[in-house]
Amino acid sequence: MNLVEIYFKMKKDVQYIEDELEKSIDTEVRELYQSSTHLLKAGGKRIRPVFVLLGGKWGNYDIKKLKHVAVPLELIHMATLVHDDVIDDADKRRGRETVRTKWDNKVAMYAGDYILARALAIAAQLPIPQLHRILAHAMVEVCKGEIEQVKDLNNWNQNFRTYLRRIKRKTALLIAISCQMGAVASGAAEEIVRKMYWYGYNVGMAFQITDDILDFTGTEKQLGKPAGSDLLNGNITLPALYAAHHGRSREQFQTWIAEEMFWDHVHEAVQMVRNDEGIGFSQRLAERYIARARAILADLPDNQAKTSLLGIADFIIERKF
Amino acid sequence: MNLVEIYFKMKKDVQYIEDELEKSIDTEVRELYQSSTHLLKAGGKRIRPVFVLLGGKWGNYDIKKLKHVAVPLELIHMATLVHDDVIDDADKRRGRETVRTKWDNKVAMYAGDYILARALAIAAQLPIPQLHRILAHAMVEVCKGEIEQVKDLNNWNQNFRTYLRRIKRKTALLIAISCQMGAVASGAAEEIVRKMYWYGYNVGMAFQITDDILDFTGTEKQLGKPAGSDLLNGNITLPALYAAHHGRSREQFQTWIAEEMFWDHVHEAVQMVRNDEGIGFSQRLAERYIARARAILADLPDNQAKTSLLGIADFIIERKF
Repeated sequence: MNLVEIYFKMKKDVQYIEDELEKSIDTEVRELYQSSTHLLKAGGKRIRPVFVLLGGKWGNYDIKKLKHVAVPLELIHMATLVHDDVIDDADKRRGRETVRTKWDNKVAMYAGDYILARALAIAAQLPIPQLHRILAHAMVEVCKGEIEQVKDLNNWNQNFRTYLRRIKRKTALLIAISCQMGAVASGAAEEIVRKMYWYGYNVGMAFQITDDILDFTGTEKQLGKPAGSDLLNGNITLPALYAAHHGRSREQFQTWIAEEMFWDHVHEAVQMVRNDEGIGFSQRLAERYIARARAILADLPDNQAKTSLLGIADFIIERKF
Repeated sequence: MNLVEIYFKMKKDVQYIEDELEKSIDTEVRELYQSSTHLLKAGGKRIRPVFVLLGGKWGNYDIKKLKHVAVPLELIHMATLVHDDVIDDADKRRGRETVRTKWDNKVAMYAGDYILARALAIAAQLPIPQLHRILAHAMVEVCKGEIEQVKDLNNWNQNFRTYLRRIKRKTALLIAISCQMGAVASGAAEEIVRKMYWYGYNVGMAFQITDDILDFTGTEKQLGKPAGSDLLNGNITLPALYAAHHGRSREQFQTWIAEEMFWDHVHEAVQMVRNDEGIGFSQRLAERYIARARAILADLPDNQAKTSLLGIADFIIERKF
């Protein structure tokens, strides 16, 4: 079953969540409304809500309850995007690109705070303390991941473990709790709740690794930004780490790094990573995470939700965009 | 009873909260720990935790429960300060003051997010859904207040109602829910919970109005910043609004505003506000809020908590710093 079919089967409920998302950030404060809906209107795969709904299929599926989990998780994701944008704008302002006006950045930072607060307010309406604990803990970890990403910028003195911990916090955790919280909200059995978490964790890890591969192998048209953007921005991902420490060009990398000349050669480096064994290595790692995600589902009863979760897992590593 | 005596009577529990605050932001992520503790170490009156503890005196006082309210409320206050600082630094960077390094601002923004997330994680440990709803709703309002403050910067086209709504969201609400949540967490009666909220609301309004008066009437030494800083930064508070629309210099103000020359004369304007009837008007309004706060407590039984709450109310408008 491909992704379109999976979405199609859930389209009524996905649309319901979409409508709730739009309502969720409605406010009489005009600037907030405009900046928040701007991002919402830009769309997205809404993969977190989809995982919540699929997690909810393992208990008493109730969209009226699940929305109190699905909407906050998508909003939290959006809030982190808004804050990342503030940071990116700040960069450009100091660099060579457009200077944004003072107004925009202030509104963007507080809009991120506002979206986050709305997320919590919607989650708080569901009186299940366990859900609040899961959500709050995940937010703490996401923040740590964001700081780590800032700290690890331009830092070659990191290893695979640093990278994996960072993407766990940055991406995998929110996907893991999407599946988990859907199951909790529907009152699914403890064992299934656990399986949903670990399925989501493994799929999330594969998702981010694939993202980091595509950043090198995709075309500018597919990506909507120049290939190699991560490395150009100092974000050192798995393919680049592999190339620098284990790949066929590692000596060249190490020389540039040792002589503090790496950033002068970063465009050459992007080409090297693209042709390096690090791409294959990263792909195999992503595949291993997907295999684990599939294995976790293995002894669950066969049903529509399981078929969809397996389908999404396959899509994650096959996708080209 | 003066403020020192009030704190002295509660000093063991205030110290306990202080220790818990320090533990609350402990993390293995060094940058986060440093930036977060930096603010914590700077101290503060910890007025929100004190209100929580006093609110908690009306039911079964249990510091082990109350800390799950007191610590988050102080952390949320701190997080908003951190984000306000990012904004202020941005201002200075574009203006004439020190340029902060890229690193600091990134860390500061994410540190604010992190402190907020920790606040929620600590509150989530107390399985009382009502508390989560109160907290989340307040955060939404605080964010609206922050955006409104940005929007209303340099804007003379606002009235007393705009100002009062803004300070309600920015300050009074968090103080109101400090008192309220303390009462809820200790299982106080519904009627007392409501009284605590409205006591806190009125005290909070008086607190912010007094702050805005002191910004004009204080000396640089008392304030730790130049007198009139609010107006110099474009933050138009009650004394300035009164002066511009009703005070003895209103014609001068209106001419400057109409000819878009106000900001060229802002230092003169600060002097005018300082000598205007707007100061007395604002003081009388603050006193009215305090009178209401006292009245709300009137028919509560006389006890230590009531004496302390009355003492704090008096301090709010008498303070010189």
